Formats: sequence, C-alpha cells, structure tokens
Amino acid sequence: MKLSESYLFKGLYDSQMKCIQQITSEQKVQKGDWLYQEGYAAEKIYFLKDGAVELLTRVEDKFELPIAIIRNLGGCFGDSSLIAPYVYSLSARCAEDATLLTVEVDALNRLMQQDNALGLCIMTNLARLLRARLKETRQELKIHFKNLFRSMQT
Amino acid sequence: MKLSESYLFKGLYDSQMKCIQQITSEQKVQKGDWLYQEGYAAEKIYFLKDGAVELLTRVEDKFELPIAIIRNLGGCFGDSSLIAPYVYSLSARCAEDATLLTVEVDALNRLMQQDNALGLCIMTNLARLLRARLKETRQELKIHFKNLFRSMQT
Repeated sequence: MKLSESYLFKGLYDSQMKCIQQITSEQKVQKGDWLYQEGYAAEKIYFLKDGAVELLTRVEDKFELPIAIIRNLGGCFGDSSLIAPYVYSLSARCAEDATLLTVEVDALNRLMQQDNALGLCIMTNLARLLRARLKETRQELKIHFKNLFRSMQT
Repeated sequence: MKLSESYLFKGLYDSQMKCIQQITSEQKVQKGDWLYQEGYAAEKIYFLKDGAVELLTRVEDKFELPIAIIRNLGGCFGDSSLIAPYVYSLSARCAEDATLLTVEVDALNRLMQQDNALGLCIMTNLARLLRARLKETRQELKIHFKNLFRSMQT
C-alpha cells in the first residue's frame, strides 16, 4: 500500500506526496495493542498498511461499543488530530497484528499552511470522509428508531 | 447578522468576505415552507439571518425524525452542497418565518479554487462542524445502547 492510495491524499500531485512521505514513519503493532484512547491529545494520524484496527467508544465505563473496524488498506483513522480541539474522539486498538504508517500532524499542518492547495485538497477529502461517517451513524440511529416505532405499534 | 459571523467563514479576511457577499442573496421564507429535500441535488448553502429552520429525515417513509433545529443566527445548513456527491443528506423546513442568506455553491467553489487560502479556511471550518455533528450523533447512539443495556439487565 502506498500512502498516495489513501483516500485522504486523493488528488495530490507526486511532488506533494513526496513532502508527506518525508513526515511519515512505519510502525508495527500487535493484536491487542492500544494506539490511542478517546479524550486524549491527538498528535498523529494513522494509515493501515496491513492487518486490522478497531475503533471503539465506552458507554458509562461499563462496556465497549464498537464503532468501526479498519481493514481496507490505506484506511485512515485518528483524523481528529487534523481538527480542533485535536482530541481523539474514539479509542483505537489493534484487532490483528498490523503495520501502520503514521504522520505527525504538526508537520502536516505546516505543509498545509505552506501549500494551501495541498491543504484544501486534504481538508476537502476529510470533509467527505466525515460526511460519509455521519451518514452511516445517522443510518444506525434510524434503525434504532425504526425498531422503537415497530415495538410501539405491536 | 453578518455573514462574516457565521462559523463557516471564521478566520477569513474582509477582502475575502467581500467576494463571498457578492455571490450571496437574501430570501424570506414562511413557516412550513420546504427549502430542500433529502436526496436531491445540493446547489445552495444557507445561513440563518432570523427565524428558525428544522432539519429532518424520514424513516421508512412513515414518520419524520427531527435531527436539528437551527435557531442560532449565522447557523449554516445545506452544507452537503460543498461535498461530493453534492446531494442533500437531510430535508429542511422552515419552523418559523425566517430570513435566509443563500450562497450559490458553483460560484463559491470557483472562489475556493481561485483563492486556495480561502478554500482551506472554509473546508477546515466545515470539517470541524461535521466532526461536532458526528460526535453529537454518536452520543445519541450511545444513549440508545445505554438504554438497551439497562433493559437487558432488568
């Protein structure tokens, strides 16, 4: 998997991707390892090279609510690091041994300020990604209301 | 309410806001008027000048599920028009007689391409807005799971 194949970087030129590769490092993680925890300062954005990572939240500190499992190569997570207040909104745990590409967000923000066209491209891709997630989450909420509605009718 | 006070345009210079004002028009709408319907081509983005607008979705064509009510002046909606595939993800209906500022998105996209710094600023604000909505929606989902969890325990 090349970083340029990741959704977040769609539309960037090779020269722009080279700048991003310079601030990227590779990391191997094992099943069960935590990558970050919900509510903590978000300083890195992650891309899956191989393996699988699960994103989850806790409900009342009692049980874990799984939100998504990242299996698609190039799939990105930890993108809260690109948006104020720069706090992870979910926790990430390695679901299978994995290789990750990590980008330091301070350096990425500097790149985006130096090259606004690069920044605009990334932020547009990110907005598209967030909109898709919002749509999925609303869809899930709809299912709950649908079931509630049905149970009220019976 | 000035358009420059809207969250989406936070951080723009006066000269940039002047360009946006040139592609903005004012529209008066009455309680009960539909502004747009879910699933339709999104060509305009709206800002509330006064009054109130409700955003909703339909569940199985049987009942309306209210998602949000926009009362805050400068509050923006119809922002799906800024993100591919440019289709409204919710329907908008006027909840009280209202005055709206509408911006043609084709013209706004041209501005963002001409002035990438303006584009980056708007897209960063939009990503922040979408992230906040995603967080709220997940919160609502959590409440449903919490109730489900409780009902399973009793």
